[in-house]
Amino acid sequence: SGFVHVKNPHLDSMEEDVLYHLDLGTKTHNLAAMFGDIKFVCVGGSPSRMRAFAQFMRRELGLAGAGEEQPDTGAGSHPTPCSGRGPRSPSAGHGMGTPSISIMLHELIKLLHHAKCRDVTIIRIGTSGGLGIEAGSVVITATAMDSSLQPRFEQVVLDDVVVRSTELDKDLAEELLVCSMEIADFPTLIGHTMCTYDFYEGQGRLDGALCSFSSEKKLEYLGRAYDAGVRNIEMESTAFAALCGLCGLKGESCQFYLL
Amino acid sequence: SGFVHVKNPHLDSMEEDVLYHLDLGTKTHNLAAMFGDIKFVCVGGSPSRMRAFAQFMRRELGLAGAGEEQPDTGAGSHPTPCSGRGPRSPSAGHGMGTPSISIMLHELIKLLHHAKCRDVTIIRIGTSGGLGIEAGSVVITATAMDSSLQPRFEQVVLDDVVVRSTELDKDLAEELLVCSMEIADFPTLIGHTMCTYDFYEGQGRLDGALCSFSSEKKLEYLGRAYDAGVRNIEMESTAFAALCGLCGLKGESCQFYLL
Repeated sequence: SGFVHVKNPHLDSMEEDVLYHLDLGTKTHNLAAMFGDIKFVCVGGSPSRMRAFAQFMRRELGLAGAGEEQPDTGAGSHPTPCSGRGPRSPSAGHGMGTPSISIMLHELIKLLHHAKCRDVTIIRIGTSGGLGIEAGSVVITATAMDSSLQPRFEQVVLDDVVVRSTELDKDLAEELLVCSMEIADFPTLIGHTMCTYDFYEGQGRLDGALCSFSSEKKLEYLGRAYDAGVRNIEMESTAFAALCGLCGLKGESCQFYLL
Repeated sequence: SGFVHVKNPHLDSMEEDVLYHLDLGTKTHNLAAMFGDIKFVCVGGSPSRMRAFAQFMRRELGLAGAGEEQPDTGAGSHPTPCSGRGPRSPSAGHGMGTPSISIMLHELIKLLHHAKCRDVTIIRIGTSGGLGIEAGSVVITATAMDSSLQPRFEQVVLDDVVVRSTELDKDLAEELLVCSMEIADFPTLIGHTMCTYDFYEGQGRLDGALCSFSSEKKLEYLGRAYDAGVRNIEMESTAFAALCGLCGLKGESCQFYLL
């Protein structure tokens, strides 16, 4: 049918669904009228970067409101607002780390569900560290891997650990790679992405961590990751891939290796 | 000595330490002159809330700059800036979830280290869900617990799981409780705080999760948490407690139960 799968039967019997962190709700807003025709959603970590991206897309697509400052959708007190929304291109700042992106994706996916959107493609645009690749490269994620180099995301639901697959859409990855070839000086590759729970200790930053570990251990670990096909490291891809998979959304995560 | 403990010997041999997410560095800023006399640090999730708090504190303490709009310290593109800083009261927005607060705390603690601060007290001011308590109550965390109701925080360092204690400063908790008694209509208690990796599935929100689970399971789990002394649920306290403990910082986490 192309609709988003939401596997919580309780949702449809609720009088109102308030999407707290997006400042939207099923009673206060006509979500189908506002968002029903959405086909593409782009998300990224930084609200200000996503606001700039939304403006850029408005100009590129010749949409109304191009050049104007747009109000944030997420005007609440929370740091993961859905910032800057064009008529057909909501862009959202999901913050850093899997718990933060998980909040935003829950509400975004429920928004697509309530709005009865069909055949939606969702693309994460992020930054990352690189592993054995040129700085400035873009990595299109084949599979998101956890810090044990497994293609899985473990979510604790109440106190059960639920393990979900983190494969992404292979056709979409290929399509994006072809797009990148049309632009000069835009080094792009498809590779696995490792997702960690921390920026300093989790990624073995000798120059940043508060605790101590040996550079030998770091090299051994990163070598093992490279051999497993990992080409970049960030903090959100496993949750993104798992929730796209759970809800039947066509998704891809692309990260720019920022030195 | 009262100094912050930083257990990474590599840090002191570095030519420069760039605190990326705070937009500060040891070469670009005289951190000792800017921050050396700091005794208290307050952190919270939302940059805008922390900006308002910093303004409030400036007025209360009669500090320079009260009433003026302050520039953000963290002017970079990242969503966890250190927002709004008074002469002696830096306030920081740490985002949502343990990975996000972990980034900010790493850089904040290294800032205190480089600035040679002594005897610093750090207080997290957050919001939370409540468990068997009155809405509007403030919970001062006795011990932060993970979603298995254990007083620990598991951080993956490279691929080793490092388990850290999440006890907080008991004397500081008592001091804060005494302060609360001086204000009328300010229900405050000391209790354990449960920290989850997710807002919807992790906290068993039948009205929000994308997956399905039974309300019986939810009630059983929350009942078990209550019996273990848990009085509120949020998403950052274990990482906060673990990093304060690791670095010898006197810390407390206080959360307002927002219905």
